[in-house]
Amino acid sequence: MKKSDKTLHLGAFLYAVGHHAGGWRYPDNEISSLLDLEYYKKVAGIAEKGKFDLIFFADRLAIPDRFGNNFNNSIRYFASFRLDPVALITALSAVTSRIGLVATASTSYNEPFAVARAYATIDHLSKGRAAWNVVTSTNDGEARNFGRDAHFDHATRYERAQEFIEVVTKLWDSWEDGALVINREEGVYGNPEKVRYVNHKGEFFQVKGPLNVPRAPQGRPVLVQAGSSERGRDFAARWAEVIFTAQPALEGAREFYKDINGRLAKFNREPGSVKIMPGVMPIIGETEAEAKRKEELLRELVHPLAGLSLLSDSMNQDLSQFDLDKPLPELDTMRGNQSRQKIVAQLAKEEGLTLAQLGKRFGASRSHRVLVGTPAQIADNFEEWLEKEACDGFNIMCPYLPGGLNEFVELVVPELQRRGIFRKEYTGVTLRDHFGLERPNPVV
Amino acid sequence: MKKSDKTLHLGAFLYAVGHHAGGWRYPDNEISSLLDLEYYKKVAGIAEKGKFDLIFFADRLAIPDRFGNNFNNSIRYFASFRLDPVALITALSAVTSRIGLVATASTSYNEPFAVARAYATIDHLSKGRAAWNVVTSTNDGEARNFGRDAHFDHATRYERAQEFIEVVTKLWDSWEDGALVINREEGVYGNPEKVRYVNHKGEFFQVKGPLNVPRAPQGRPVLVQAGSSERGRDFAARWAEVIFTAQPALEGAREFYKDINGRLAKFNREPGSVKIMPGVMPIIGETEAEAKRKEELLRELVHPLAGLSLLSDSMNQDLSQFDLDKPLPELDTMRGNQSRQKIVAQLAKEEGLTLAQLGKRFGASRSHRVLVGTPAQIADNFEEWLEKEACDGFNIMCPYLPGGLNEFVELVVPELQRRGIFRKEYTGVTLRDHFGLERPNPVV
Repeated sequence: MKKSDKTLHLGAFLYAVGHHAGGWRYPDNEISSLLDLEYYKKVAGIAEKGKFDLIFFADRLAIPDRFGNNFNNSIRYFASFRLDPVALITALSAVTSRIGLVATASTSYNEPFAVARAYATIDHLSKGRAAWNVVTSTNDGEARNFGRDAHFDHATRYERAQEFIEVVTKLWDSWEDGALVINREEGVYGNPEKVRYVNHKGEFFQVKGPLNVPRAPQGRPVLVQAGSSERGRDFAARWAEVIFTAQPALEGAREFYKDINGRLAKFNREPGSVKIMPGVMPIIGETEAEAKRKEELLRELVHPLAGLSLLSDSMNQDLSQFDLDKPLPELDTMRGNQSRQKIVAQLAKEEGLTLAQLGKRFGASRSHRVLVGTPAQIADNFEEWLEKEACDGFNIMCPYLPGGLNEFVELVVPELQRRGIFRKEYTGVTLRDHFGLERPNPVV
Repeated sequence: MKKSDKTLHLGAFLYAVGHHAGGWRYPDNEISSLLDLEYYKKVAGIAEKGKFDLIFFADRLAIPDRFGNNFNNSIRYFASFRLDPVALITALSAVTSRIGLVATASTSYNEPFAVARAYATIDHLSKGRAAWNVVTSTNDGEARNFGRDAHFDHATRYERAQEFIEVVTKLWDSWEDGALVINREEGVYGNPEKVRYVNHKGEFFQVKGPLNVPRAPQGRPVLVQAGSSERGRDFAARWAEVIFTAQPALEGAREFYKDINGRLAKFNREPGSVKIMPGVMPIIGETEAEAKRKEELLRELVHPLAGLSLLSDSMNQDLSQFDLDKPLPELDTMRGNQSRQKIVAQLAKEEGLTLAQLGKRFGASRSHRVLVGTPAQIADNFEEWLEKEACDGFNIMCPYLPGGLNEFVELVVPELQRRGIFRKEYTGVTLRDHFGLERPNPVV
């Protein structure tokens, strides 16, 4: 059955009770408490049962309030709060055993020592399953919670991110393996020759080190990135080991895949050393018609202002100033997530959507691809994307949770396994093992 | 049997494989991996079996390197690294059910939004068991990992701490109970009237809010503090709900207890609204002689340079410049933990210790009280301190772990229970329940 030697990697991109802004109102969806660890344990358990490579939590550092410069619609129409994603993967490290744990942390509003330490700690507690999704943050609401009036401009935040990640990797490398001797007879606990200062003095940061956590089981926790702008692509090609990306169509995804892999050589990296995982929202039915009915129902459940709150937040623009019954006007500035803004503007133009309609659309999948069909149709599509070198796998964005993930694991995963393009069992222990990524040696 | 109406509160102050710098070499001590969650799970489980109020992790943001301006002795002679304490309590929230979870975070090297969010998240995940131990950090090594050459001076760090904690509590209060409506029929998720901006603009911080986490199960996570200087006492009397303190002798402890309780009125707080828990290291034997032999053995196992590394770190002074065979000279500046420095200087003087001897002593219990005896003797002493209003309980610092905690739970706890001064079962769910502390209402 297998047409390709490549196999897929799967991530469970977890968000609220599902990515679809109508997901929390979906009838089959059990009402779960987003504040209860049991809910997250359940969802992580389903993903681990489905042999996923990882679960992933994104982040925003503020309640969305760009739309109308207040949070009213965000609070009213969807679950706009977010528990700390680093805390979530840490708690889940204690109640899962194989699945990779990816949490987002911003380089704009953290300190590198704290980030290096937190992820190294989680890598130890999880025995090598931690990954850091590096983001530069998006909007002014986040800036205002961290002492600034506006978010850093695009260039500055990438310069800061660049230096931030350099410091973090230096800190991770400040302990070699074998630094802990623990010779009780002779009273020697460690070998200071295997520990070093980092003495970083840069434009944004000054950090002496060493880290106060020994070298992590994975050497370095896995680095995940999602930049898709020109600058973001270079950044990803230099640093990322896994890339999450929004790719609405096959051709664009192939172009992105080729482009990123083509940039690796510039940074002395081997082809295949970065795994590219576009987001996709599967809406699954026993028949295609059933799947389409589900999609329609979900769309009806979205309040347009929920979608527009999310879109204003992502674009870092107040869209309440425009007429909801007219198309999205041309905006002369790009202030937030640039690649996302391009996708949205193109979609609105091609389909002639009003702003209200665009809100509902954005509320559905946040401009990620929606794949509506039977398990076999979804597997066909995944196989095609894999064969045509459009991706190394997918970040699965269930419209509603935990139900949607359960359906995916029960119906789609076995179909992928039958075709030989997805693992039946975990063969390794760490997240690097799942991806076939090398454990890096310290760079001295 | 019971002579007093008061009952004790007990904390398990967890540090490395025991507080005693010789603890890791102690023969009965199983060698545990300090990098392994199983170890922490085991120790937390013992404390929970013993019906302790809480477990507690202190913190330092650097490997101690004040002694000789290098980390060689710290790495060589003891476990000088520390996993992120916030991550530790978060992971433990998933595998414990009743015990309170206290982790330290510094107001000098964090942002209030991040701290407020992390502890609110842990309070949700643990169903109301989170507490924040507020510290201002101690030494230049920590400063150098966070972009500064030297630590903030004593006054500045308390001013910053004061404003930091104000912002954190405002953020915790930015959501009222009942803000989440979750009416699926009508599509109303939340009530924005129960959420508010904090709009803080101060000397150190500018934070708009609201927090992106709904009100915590405890209203606010419990605030713990350890300041003992004049400034620190006022700070604690204003903010702390639990105070950890080093009190080597009964009279000093009574003075401290009275002093803190006397300061409460100034801040419109009720007597008894703060629980004072001095640290104590119990060294337990079936006979007093056996306990003393244990103490002696532990002391032999400490390398003097381990103790002096720790002491240099605590005092923020390089003690390597002085003659190890002479007494600690009078120092004209106090740079680190001021109250600790006073205790140490007094001890050295009274007992005529050389610097090397002082190192061994400091390595034993970090200037906390050491209580050597049978379970009955230890219980007698605890009862006396409780009756004489020297404390509300103790922060138990086992010399070696998990063995020392096991002995305490097996031998001393039943003795305390028999005397009616310690709980036999948990009667509440949250850490506030264990302490009888009120759940605060939001201050608008």
